[in-house]
Amino acid sequence: MAKKKVGIGLIGYAFMGKTHSNAYRQVDKFFPDLEVEPEMTAICGRNPQNVERAAQQFGWKGFETDWRKLIDRPDIDIIDISTPGNEHREMAIYAAQAGKTVFCEKPLGNTFEDAKAMLDAVEAAKVVNMVCFNYRRVPAIALAKRIIESGDLGRIYHFRARYLQDWIADPNFPLVWRLRKEIAGSGTLGDIGAHILDISNYLIGDLSSLCGMTETFVKERPLQAATTGDEGLTAQGTSEMGQVTVDDATAWLGRFANGAMGVFEASRFAPGHRNFNTFEVNGEKGTLSFNFERMNELEYFSTDDKSDRQGFRTINVNENDQPYSGVYWPAGHIIGYEHTFINTVADLLNGHAQGKSPHPDFRVGAYNNLVLDTVEKSQNSGKWEDIAKF
Amino acid sequence: MAKKKVGIGLIGYAFMGKTHSNAYRQVDKFFPDLEVEPEMTAICGRNPQNVERAAQQFGWKGFETDWRKLIDRPDIDIIDISTPGNEHREMAIYAAQAGKTVFCEKPLGNTFEDAKAMLDAVEAAKVVNMVCFNYRRVPAIALAKRIIESGDLGRIYHFRARYLQDWIADPNFPLVWRLRKEIAGSGTLGDIGAHILDISNYLIGDLSSLCGMTETFVKERPLQAATTGDEGLTAQGTSEMGQVTVDDATAWLGRFANGAMGVFEASRFAPGHRNFNTFEVNGEKGTLSFNFERMNELEYFSTDDKSDRQGFRTINVNENDQPYSGVYWPAGHIIGYEHTFINTVADLLNGHAQGKSPHPDFRVGAYNNLVLDTVEKSQNSGKWEDIAKF
Amino acid sequence: MAKKKVGIGLIGYAFMGKTHSNAYRQVDKFFPDLEVEPEMTAICGRNPQNVERAAQQFGWKGFETDWRKLIDRPDIDIIDISTPGNEHREMAIYAAQAGKTVFCEKPLGNTFEDAKAMLDAVEAAKVVNMVCFNYRRVPAIALAKRIIESGDLGRIYHFRARYLQDWIADPNFPLVWRLRKEIAGSGTLGDIGAHILDISNYLIGDLSSLCGMTETFVKERPLQAATTGDEGLTAQGTSEMGQVTVDDATAWLGRFANGAMGVFEASRFAPGHRNFNTFEVNGEKGTLSFNFERMNELEYFSTDDKSDRQGFRTINVNENDQPYSGVYWPAGHIIGYEHTFINTVADLLNGHAQGKSPHPDFRVGAYNNLVLDTVEKSQNSGKWEDIAKF
Amino acid sequence: MAKKKVGIGLIGYAFMGKTHSNAYRQVDKFFPDLEVEPEMTAICGRNPQNVERAAQQFGWKGFETDWRKLIDRPDIDIIDISTPGNEHREMAIYAAQAGKTVFCEKPLGNTFEDAKAMLDAVEAAKVVNMVCFNYRRVPAIALAKRIIESGDLGRIYHFRARYLQDWIADPNFPLVWRLRKEIAGSGTLGDIGAHILDISNYLIGDLSSLCGMTETFVKERPLQAATTGDEGLTAQGTSEMGQVTVDDATAWLGRFANGAMGVFEASRFAPGHRNFNTFEVNGEKGTLSFNFERMNELEYFSTDDKSDRQGFRTINVNENDQPYSGVYWPAGHIIGYEHTFINTVADLLNGHAQGKSPHPDFRVGAYNNLVLDTVEKSQNSGKWEDIAKF
Repeated sequence: MAKKKVGIGLIGYAFMGKTHSNAYRQVDKFFPDLEVEPEMTAICGRNPQNVERAAQQFGWKGFETDWRKLIDRPDIDIIDISTPGNEHREMAIYAAQAGKTVFCEKPLGNTFEDAKAMLDAVEAAKVVNMVCFNYRRVPAIALAKRIIESGDLGRIYHFRARYLQDWIADPNFPLVWRLRKEIAGSGTLGDIGAHILDISNYLIGDLSSLCGMTETFVKERPLQAATTGDEGLTAQGTSEMGQVTVDDATAWLGRFANGAMGVFEASRFAPGHRNFNTFEVNGEKGTLSFNFERMNELEYFSTDDKSDRQGFRTINVNENDQPYSGVYWPAGHIIGYEHTFINTVADLLNGHAQGKSPHPDFRVGAYNNLVLDTVEKSQNSGKWEDIAKF
Repeated sequence: MAKKKVGIGLIGYAFMGKTHSNAYRQVDKFFPDLEVEPEMTAICGRNPQNVERAAQQFGWKGFETDWRKLIDRPDIDIIDISTPGNEHREMAIYAAQAGKTVFCEKPLGNTFEDAKAMLDAVEAAKVVNMVCFNYRRVPAIALAKRIIESGDLGRIYHFRARYLQDWIADPNFPLVWRLRKEIAGSGTLGDIGAHILDISNYLIGDLSSLCGMTETFVKERPLQAATTGDEGLTAQGTSEMGQVTVDDATAWLGRFANGAMGVFEASRFAPGHRNFNTFEVNGEKGTLSFNFERMNELEYFSTDDKSDRQGFRTINVNENDQPYSGVYWPAGHIIGYEHTFINTVADLLNGHAQGKSPHPDFRVGAYNNLVLDTVEKSQNSGKWEDIAKF
Repeated sequence: MAKKKVGIGLIGYAFMGKTHSNAYRQVDKFFPDLEVEPEMTAICGRNPQNVERAAQQFGWKGFETDWRKLIDRPDIDIIDISTPGNEHREMAIYAAQAGKTVFCEKPLGNTFEDAKAMLDAVEAAKVVNMVCFNYRRVPAIALAKRIIESGDLGRIYHFRARYLQDWIADPNFPLVWRLRKEIAGSGTLGDIGAHILDISNYLIGDLSSLCGMTETFVKERPLQAATTGDEGLTAQGTSEMGQVTVDDATAWLGRFANGAMGVFEASRFAPGHRNFNTFEVNGEKGTLSFNFERMNELEYFSTDDKSDRQGFRTINVNENDQPYSGVYWPAGHIIGYEHTFINTVADLLNGHAQGKSPHPDFRVGAYNNLVLDTVEKSQNSGKWEDIAKF
Repeated sequence: MAKKKVGIGLIGYAFMGKTHSNAYRQVDKFFPDLEVEPEMTAICGRNPQNVERAAQQFGWKGFETDWRKLIDRPDIDIIDISTPGNEHREMAIYAAQAGKTVFCEKPLGNTFEDAKAMLDAVEAAKVVNMVCFNYRRVPAIALAKRIIESGDLGRIYHFRARYLQDWIADPNFPLVWRLRKEIAGSGTLGDIGAHILDISNYLIGDLSSLCGMTETFVKERPLQAATTGDEGLTAQGTSEMGQVTVDDATAWLGRFANGAMGVFEASRFAPGHRNFNTFEVNGEKGTLSFNFERMNELEYFSTDDKSDRQGFRTINVNENDQPYSGVYWPAGHIIGYEHTFINTVADLLNGHAQGKSPHPDFRVGAYNNLVLDTVEKSQNSGKWEDIAKF
């Protein structure tokens, strides 16, 4: 019996547009048991030439230049919002009100206020909703979750995470959109700090209080040349200077509701760390650690091992009996960054089919925004701040 | 201007069929500058139900159950042979005589005699030909080639390689086709030994002589249950036993034409090594080493570094200025096993467009078979053997 | 010409007594150019049987049971204080007033007040003084210092350090002296937090403000059986319980005077980390990182390397042209923990000969205590605190 | 009760003289339960000034310039031969005939003929004898032995070892004694190949046959300046050239008596590898691997671990319940190269006390020489050779 077809509409065709397109194109090839059949119906962007080219390159059947029109299309069931954060709110609310399943890139909003409005909208409309924190579906992180939930680490004492990149360590790198508050909302905080926060939420739970700091090391940068790509990773500067209005780096200490200690740090000023998204969990009976640059591996130490041969195990997470791993290639034939999105989209499609929001839903996304806002609040107050309830 | 379309016909839908299908499906999404536009015209296998399902899952427009019919189809320009080795010869010669570009999985033949006949056929027919040694297009290995060719290592002293797997270390694992000489030709020798040999050929050049050994640790295994998959990685055994007729492990010492020493070893009896394809090159001024389980990394030591801070560098090979790396994701957002096939197929398609065989062509493939045969000859003679000329 | 002999008197014969004894015994064997000749004159402890046995095992000529008597001996020139922290103050002041060179284990005092009094005493007496922060003389850390001072990292953005151990992660481990505030002063803070703080001071400079937290995960533990060793690493518990009065873990965020961000964490609740003293420095043009469990290695990333082959270099720090490295064994023949003390004592002896206090002197030690006190102050106030001047 | 004193006489004061002196000086400090008390009675060398200085620096009570006189001294019980290989035979036989315990650096002889004569002498004289293959007492290697003997790896399939150094990769490095056959006997073969062979013998057992090769990459080198040290690691060359008469690199394939395959390689032409003495053992149920540059670690993979969390464990071998580990420092406070000699000498002294030769005795040393000779024989014959019985 043929599966029900589900039309996808994607807004945005830059970096995230490319990863999401790839995921929709690949998902049914690796997950043959998917409950529905995805259709890459249309991609949306403002510039008609560019979006048409993106549609063609990424494998979309059609394209739109007006996102409201895309959302209104009756052949589209799922709206994927992959734009910069300042546009999420309006789009998500419109999509929810149109009764569409809403899948939104992180951070959900540029502020908690935005995110809360989006949460209210999807709850009012009772539509399936999901935030794209793709790292939850790294097989190694899903395995870490399994081990923690099994109780094999015992009581959790510590969570520590660092997300380090280096692409703006050079003070001459231009002022791309990710360095402008009015578009990006914040700098490292919302871009990569949001990820390690979400991983902590997935593995350990909610924070109850925190004390945070932010820093802008380079306060002025060359304005970006108009002709260079919107992502900015290969951006060129001009001779005119502009203000950097976001944080270059951030760090916060936290206390989790379950009593564990948390230490978080994010920076784009760490030469040599291209995408060093790393965390460690210490429990009474063991430790887990992870680094995205070796995303197929999970480090595990267990005090249950014989005492004369304990040590950190490098688990190669490509085995049939590990999460999301049986569907790709044989053990040791590793997967990459893009597969985290394929795994995410597989769960999104099944969630859509079942009318059930997969984790992390907009409530989790709003919590994430709230914590990010609290880091900034703490930076301003110079003291510990509680995470509010909502 | 629209690109010329090129029809692909793929024979085989098991493990290699899946990787090749993925490569054709993805290649133009990541290589927009490809000179032609690939069409996934048809896939071919004996069992109509299975091949139809494979066509659907992997994204092929049609399917055939008779490989001669596939080759004869006028809408097919490139024949991709991804079957076990015992079928390569007949198929490749038929395809060459039909004037098709021939792309064949490794090892080219099950013997040098087979491979030589295939080489003669493609040379007589003057068709584009290529053997699928996918590891040449691991970005890190292509970068190793660039560094060696730059002269930065100086004179080459040593090449050593080990390809270690562990999937048959358990004596109760059943007698799958890869353990039967009449189908597979040899065991580790042709399956994984062929790969490290080809890497040595790519990076260092031809061997002039060698001394080799082969070993079969487990001489009898349970016959495979008829109903389990032809790949055998999840195969089930029966209560009846059969003879293992191939090698479980092999090793050889060699002397390269350029004076370097070579040490090679391949085994499927190395617990913990899922796909540990590793090599090291030592030159007068530096060293390069690689391990496929961390395929995004290349280790490099250079005596040109300041003397108080020399050390092995872990190069993360995902940068824009490294081979095959700019087309996927930003630095540090790693790629996986499947991308080596996408890179290979990109070069195949451009080679087809230009009427020029990309490396490694059938001549290199025949050389590879000749060396494998020489390892077996040396095992039988108990002495060093020269590699013949052809 | 014979070298001048220098008499050493050591107070304490537990863990630190053993490491210091070894250092005095070995120092002139590896540093033949030492300006004086050390004599292991006497070791001091309260229990006559135990201290006599220690003198014999560790190679001391004599022993004392009264530390004042030891200090008063005219054949002793250098007093080495290797007792728990609550005894440092009285001993150091007495030794300074006796005109002896004073070498004191870290932390200098159990509080800044103690440390300041000790500083005042050595400054008043104008005696050579040094605190034993042995990690400064890990060759890899001294090399890190050299690279930072060369300017090759450019402007420093980040320092982050974690010192993780696991010996009390088990809640049934007994209440040894290191868990009692009246003896140890603090828990992880002064024991291992002091070390990473001193490394930051050595490599980056002074902190200007910080926000810190401390945590005691296990608030009650079995009292220690009276007969077990004072170090407690192999201690046995009784059935009676007692209060843990120190911190189990601590963390703080800091701002350095030079504008760099600092993140510090110390814990004894991190299973698998036996002595994981690790830090990383990020500068504009490179990164350095270190982990004591691989103390012969320093990781270095430089943006000065060719762009297609940049990566973290694992520098094996045993080369003749690296700090403290030529005196031991050939490159690659690694050294261990004890050699950091031999290096320290070599500098102490030369400092004594020259009448010049080697780094870190008591002023640096007092600064260290002040920062530790400030972490506790911040824990109590719940806000950022400035580091006072003194 | 006082322990019996045992007088040591050491011949040689270069690199090995320094390591052995350190071991005698330190052994009773770390092994208080030693059955006898070592006395560093005298060291012997030809040049009176140099040997006197060595005696003083290394802590010997006296010195001799005639080795026969040293051996004849009644206050000397153990003769330690740490000279180049060409002198071992005469000295060891003389010492045995004098009834002394004989401890000899490896390789035992420069040829099997030499070694066999030495073996005959100690067996005739019934004296305690031991060859100094120090790597057997690396705690991690002793732990590997324990794991193999426990049966936890099951049937052994593979042993592979590489010992790589780089100190003569530069063709301008001078012709030191280690490159001259008349003194050193062979090059890498006897110097470092002997070590990996002995490790294989300790862990796996005897080889029954092998096929080997040797290579001399640089056939002429500058003669060494007369004034530079006899070790040659910092040697200076002159403008005159001389012939290199030993091998620069060697490799051999072998079959063990127990059916395992062996692959061995040794080279001094591997830039970046300072003392990379590495091996791996694969058994039916697990793998062990080791690298001396991280000598405090042992890698262990076990198929007994839960299937979804198997991986190579990095065992930090400094725990109380691991071989030779309780005597030094707490876990994670690593030891170094010199401690392997302290461990060896502890066993030597206890063996002397008990009148029982510790492993590896001269019989094992003679076997080692026989295999080295067989590698050269195979290089000459171009074929596999059996290891003779003796």
